[in-house]
Amino acid sequence: MKALCFGDALKLETHYPEPTAGEGEVLVSVKLSGICATDLEIARGYMGFRGVLGHEFVGTVMRGPRKWQGRRVVAEINCVCGQCEMCHRGLSNHCRRRTVIGIQGRDGAFAELIAVPERNLHAVPDAVRDEQAVFVEPLAAAFQVIRQSPIEKRMRVAVVGTGRLGLLVAQVLQTTGCDLEAIGRNEMTLNFCERRGIRTTPLSEVQPRADKDVVVECSGSPDGLALAMRLLRPRGRIVLKSTYAGDGAVDLAPVVINEFDVMGSRCGPFPDAINALACGQVDVESLISRQVPLDRGVEAFAMAADPRYIKILLKVNP
Amino acid sequence: MKALCFGDALKLETHYPEPTAGEGEVLVSVKLSGICATDLEIARGYMGFRGVLGHEFVGTVMRGPRKWQGRRVVAEINCVCGQCEMCHRGLSNHCRRRTVIGIQGRDGAFAELIAVPERNLHAVPDAVRDEQAVFVEPLAAAFQVIRQSPIEKRMRVAVVGTGRLGLLVAQVLQTTGCDLEAIGRNEMTLNFCERRGIRTTPLSEVQPRADKDVVVECSGSPDGLALAMRLLRPRGRIVLKSTYAGDGAVDLAPVVINEFDVMGSRCGPFPDAINALACGQVDVESLISRQVPLDRGVEAFAMAADPRYIKILLKVNP
Repeated sequence: MKALCFGDALKLETHYPEPTAGEGEVLVSVKLSGICATDLEIARGYMGFRGVLGHEFVGTVMRGPRKWQGRRVVAEINCVCGQCEMCHRGLSNHCRRRTVIGIQGRDGAFAELIAVPERNLHAVPDAVRDEQAVFVEPLAAAFQVIRQSPIEKRMRVAVVGTGRLGLLVAQVLQTTGCDLEAIGRNEMTLNFCERRGIRTTPLSEVQPRADKDVVVECSGSPDGLALAMRLLRPRGRIVLKSTYAGDGAVDLAPVVINEFDVMGSRCGPFPDAINALACGQVDVESLISRQVPLDRGVEAFAMAADPRYIKILLKVNP
Repeated sequence: MKALCFGDALKLETHYPEPTAGEGEVLVSVKLSGICATDLEIARGYMGFRGVLGHEFVGTVMRGPRKWQGRRVVAEINCVCGQCEMCHRGLSNHCRRRTVIGIQGRDGAFAELIAVPERNLHAVPDAVRDEQAVFVEPLAAAFQVIRQSPIEKRMRVAVVGTGRLGLLVAQVLQTTGCDLEAIGRNEMTLNFCERRGIRTTPLSEVQPRADKDVVVECSGSPDGLALAMRLLRPRGRIVLKSTYAGDGAVDLAPVVINEFDVMGSRCGPFPDAINALACGQVDVESLISRQVPLDRGVEAFAMAADPRYIKILLKVNP
């Protein structure tokens, strides 16, 4: 089958072996998949991953138990043992023996077929189009922010970074009715926020007043984290969404002096994301810049890294 | 009066002007004061402070309202406005207009006299000797750990760093009955823990198992924070006690991947510390390596920076 793989470099394989469904697994024919910042990082060697990339996708079950046959599905990315201490604590996203689709020890979704554990599947309701469903995974990650850190209406909240993830996080935060401000450098994405009724401030015009109750760091840069610390009130919380914030040196003294709470946040609840899409609470389709055939996957990665585009989708099977 | 000051360098002034008590302030004759890591950092230029150093002390009220006259006191270090947003929220330690004794905008306690706000005073009960009372401020900071992050008996907790602060934090954590491990490189301080019934592991023998529920970082080094991340279970909490942990580059990617909660922790509740000393719950006097006259304050600073000593006190007025 065709598959977009990372070995020493990103490469489209045309005769990659088809996956077989192991015990408890189903085989999914991938329809659409999305390229995210983590994919771009992995293609630069992050995580030391080798294999088929991709973890955001929607597809149709080809082989598996009758109840799933032919159904349109999305799938959680953490493939877990169900038996370790973390799984027993209900924290199976942190399973000690997990593999992660397209990220760690398991082939991903930039391929015609993918094998995934049945327990990871979520059916996509008819009300949710493919072009929306492909956003369920990152949107769930955005919902994780308000799961971990309940946001009340009276709170002052900022999102730093209005890239792919920041735009989802901002929309999820908007559902809480909080006093929200999105801060970014990209005029196009700031305009998207404004059209959605989210107040924005261009990065160049920010005047930090140390008065935010919560700041969600979505910029993926040490500068973004440093800015978050200057936006936040003492005892406030920074939710750290981007996996790459640690590349540079960040002075953590303000964390101690101001008793900040810095909370890492990763994968989130799929049902919340599916519901939000089904009832039109979140606009994801406007974020799609291009849909590119899998054959042109390498080119699609270059586009995804280009700030003139927001979301690049890979069209796999029609 | 005599005062140990920091300008361009640490220096004993013999004719420093005596302080005057402003409105709402009392004048305290300092008996004993303690040198801590923050003082050492300030004497290296941290915080850009200029003036009399010192914020850990016990003394006698010389001038002030009758109820305080002649009483033995300790004092909280944050001098606050009582009117800003933080003060109104009950977070006056984070007062927007605060000065901090011997740290920020206000002369400290390495001097014969010090002016402090009356509201900052706590009377020292007879059961607490001067050599104990001088530890109230850092011990309160240790109690802040369990105030911010309630510790239950079943929890696995580690303290990284067994210096002055780490030894206090470890003893406070021990009062919770949790499964406690102190990790440090100094044989002398590890022995102190063992004698107090606290399990220890020399830094060189640590094998991180990512199974601690809470790790308190007291080493003040980026390496300590990196170790804390390897000791912690997913979704666990790191309490950051040392103000200088940000000097080096720390990779924060594990914070996101494991959804760690990194919580800064600073000043704490004086009453808890005074009570703990009054009932002998915490041993501080064994930590005193030397009591040095204020006249030899510069020398005392050098000793405080020497790992062969634990706590150096300055004897000010008899």
